[in-house]
Amino acid sequence: MAQSEQNLQVPQEAPASPASDHNPTSPSRVPRAPPKPASVKINVEGAFIVNDETATRNGGSEFVHWEQKDIRLPHHTDVVSHVAVDIGGSLAKLVYFSREPASHIVGGRLNFLNFETDRIDECIAFIQNLKDKQSKLNGSRPADLCIMATGGGAFRFYDKMKDVLQVNVVREDEMDCLIIGLDFFITEIPREVFAFSETEPMNFVQPKADIYPYLLVNIGSGVSMIKVSGPRQFQRVGGTSLGGGTFWGILSLLTGARTFDEMLAMADRGDNAGVDLLVGDIYGTGYGANTNITGLKSTTIASTFGKVFKKKRAAERNAEDGEGLAKENPEELNGFCIEDMSRSLLFAISNNIGQIAYLQSEKHALKHIYFGGSFIRGHAQTMNTLSYAIKFWSKGEKQAYFLRHEGYLGAVGAFLKRQPRNWGRRNSMEEIGLSKMISRE
Amino acid sequence: MAQSEQNLQVPQEAPASPASDHNPTSPSRVPRAPPKPASVKINVEGAFIVNDETATRNGGSEFVHWEQKDIRLPHHTDVVSHVAVDIGGSLAKLVYFSREPASHIVGGRLNFLNFETDRIDECIAFIQNLKDKQSKLNGSRPADLCIMATGGGAFRFYDKMKDVLQVNVVREDEMDCLIIGLDFFITEIPREVFAFSETEPMNFVQPKADIYPYLLVNIGSGVSMIKVSGPRQFQRVGGTSLGGGTFWGILSLLTGARTFDEMLAMADRGDNAGVDLLVGDIYGTGYGANTNITGLKSTTIASTFGKVFKKKRAAERNAEDGEGLAKENPEELNGFCIEDMSRSLLFAISNNIGQIAYLQSEKHALKHIYFGGSFIRGHAQTMNTLSYAIKFWSKGEKQAYFLRHEGYLGAVGAFLKRQPRNWGRRNSMEEIGLSKMISRE
Repeated sequence: MAQSEQNLQVPQEAPASPASDHNPTSPSRVPRAPPKPASVKINVEGAFIVNDETATRNGGSEFVHWEQKDIRLPHHTDVVSHVAVDIGGSLAKLVYFSREPASHIVGGRLNFLNFETDRIDECIAFIQNLKDKQSKLNGSRPADLCIMATGGGAFRFYDKMKDVLQVNVVREDEMDCLIIGLDFFITEIPREVFAFSETEPMNFVQPKADIYPYLLVNIGSGVSMIKVSGPRQFQRVGGTSLGGGTFWGILSLLTGARTFDEMLAMADRGDNAGVDLLVGDIYGTGYGANTNITGLKSTTIASTFGKVFKKKRAAERNAEDGEGLAKENPEELNGFCIEDMSRSLLFAISNNIGQIAYLQSEKHALKHIYFGGSFIRGHAQTMNTLSYAIKFWSKGEKQAYFLRHEGYLGAVGAFLKRQPRNWGRRNSMEEIGLSKMISRE
Repeated sequence: MAQSEQNLQVPQEAPASPASDHNPTSPSRVPRAPPKPASVKINVEGAFIVNDETATRNGGSEFVHWEQKDIRLPHHTDVVSHVAVDIGGSLAKLVYFSREPASHIVGGRLNFLNFETDRIDECIAFIQNLKDKQSKLNGSRPADLCIMATGGGAFRFYDKMKDVLQVNVVREDEMDCLIIGLDFFITEIPREVFAFSETEPMNFVQPKADIYPYLLVNIGSGVSMIKVSGPRQFQRVGGTSLGGGTFWGILSLLTGARTFDEMLAMADRGDNAGVDLLVGDIYGTGYGANTNITGLKSTTIASTFGKVFKKKRAAERNAEDGEGLAKENPEELNGFCIEDMSRSLLFAISNNIGQIAYLQSEKHALKHIYFGGSFIRGHAQTMNTLSYAIKFWSKGEKQAYFLRHEGYLGAVGAFLKRQPRNWGRRNSMEEIGLSKMISRE
């Protein structure tokens, strides 16, 4: 397992007070004296997802993307003076705790938002704003705020965050955080994990304790596949560079689309058969029985974008033969519909990840496959393709699972991960029941 | 195993005369009386590859692509009255036998050429020309020529071939032909099969008899992976739609390149780091040690095309901010170098195939992996990437093999495949030593 770095950067302070210190039933809204960072514990008991689409937000700029699915922590009353950020290749994901604004509501909530990584300055400004509010509210010394940072950007932007914010920045191992976050979601949060099918898009799985072993497939700009054998027992077994960044990159060049949502909307409208070469295109349709020689249906995609080169050459030939190129409408590129391209590429990338995930799960004898990461974005076609691939390749023996906070595994893991190493009886996560009560040093 | 169809279409004729009928030492150049198709046997003894780059060709149009690596069959003297064609999604590959033009040279050679599948009419015209020449030379009745056809196009263009050529068209199972062709190349042809490394691009493997089991990865427009356990014992275990057609299709749209060779030449000049997001781009370069947290080198490709979306957005922002979009030179698209795109996509597709091939070989306990198909085209970067992927994933335990006639496995297999089922003591290929002496019914 990769060595975490926090112990080098943050001196360990006194052991946290025992869990019973905390009174989850207290409805008190009076802010307590700000605790030492080491004594803050997140009480995740009874956590649940809030579906308030109309939540009003304070702070942030036009560049912040808020998720409308906060997690309520009804039993948490302590002050929390840390925020967590997972800075990936494309997106910086932020998780922080806030008290409920209405004074009669106990506890608070976890907030989920992201910025493009290229807008990291906006992200840091947002955190600065949180810090200012917190010190106004609690009278904390500014240094009390702590940033739990993970993802590659935790290293790339470490100095910048420290310099601008003048706070502790604790860097955490990316995969460790992903797994802690995922374990938390699987074991603690009702209506978080689900299986997808076209007839039942969100077939929720009850939180459960017995979750290992499993395969986590995290799809961001690139894809990582992690075999998880137990709490904090994991290994990166593979991955592929064909991920979200490939989809966004190729489509932004081909279609001119400027946002991921625009690309997904185009994919919903497109027909991949406009650009993909299907088995039926190769074998012809007149020999229905014979298409099964390969064991493949005539609608199976033989070659992604496989019609393009052929058709484009044919069009160019016609042009050379004096017929001229047909005038294109703006939705087309070289005679191909950009919606069709979007759908084709979404299929291809999802299918490919699904196949590799299946093969890795076979190699490592893992039955459950969880898909996380910002590529999925709750998009039905993506989840359908991934689910289908797992079902197809495993002949129905394996199941793909998704999460409503799929993009925030690492950020939530970093948020929860304040369990110092070599620390008395809480040395291992297992002993305290990882997500019931996570302490911060 | 897929059921071959030839017995339904071509009535079985008399059993072929025994192999000893044929006298491989005879230097006779006098054409014999045309034999019944059933008695034609291809003598592959002593076959070798001819490296005559300057071979002059007769027949064909500007649309034919000749390979400059014929296979000499020095001991074959019988008249051959069949040609073989493997019509795939993008290319129609043709194999036929011709006598040596110089009268003092014994035997003949196998010729290899292809047409784009969209130029199937040119391909058929070429075969018509062969047929005319043959009937002039041998006085054959026109119907004696027989076309052994495989690939999807064998079905799609069956009626057309029959109607235009007025000959027997015998359709053969695609995978069966691939395997027979590959077995022939592995067991019979010296300096055909090789391992690739940058220092030794063609490390030839001696022909050998003990070849099973192995994995064949055939990369055409799409990719098929076939587990081969023994002669005629095979199973399609997987594949991917991300193949040659994807490379050609996406690049023809992005770069305007009009031929595969043009695309490969661009890939040779490009630097994929111009468009790919590397691990070092995510983690930064200031934290050398930390990039190993993921176990990945900083030069590892995290996301194919992963820089594009980010950079393009940044450029658009600058434009919106009044700075204007930089004027592009013709080698660029949206500020990205089309050579870089070519190299990135070549890497991605080869890497991806390599990983899936490795995982399939693990699942099915196959140590040897042969890569065939028209995508490879003897291109060093492609073979290097495939080899590297197999070596990387298998930790050096598995080996990728390539073939000089990589695109002609199916066509050669169809050419050789005239072993009728249920046919006396030659019921199984194994009994007669498949490629020593192949008979045509």
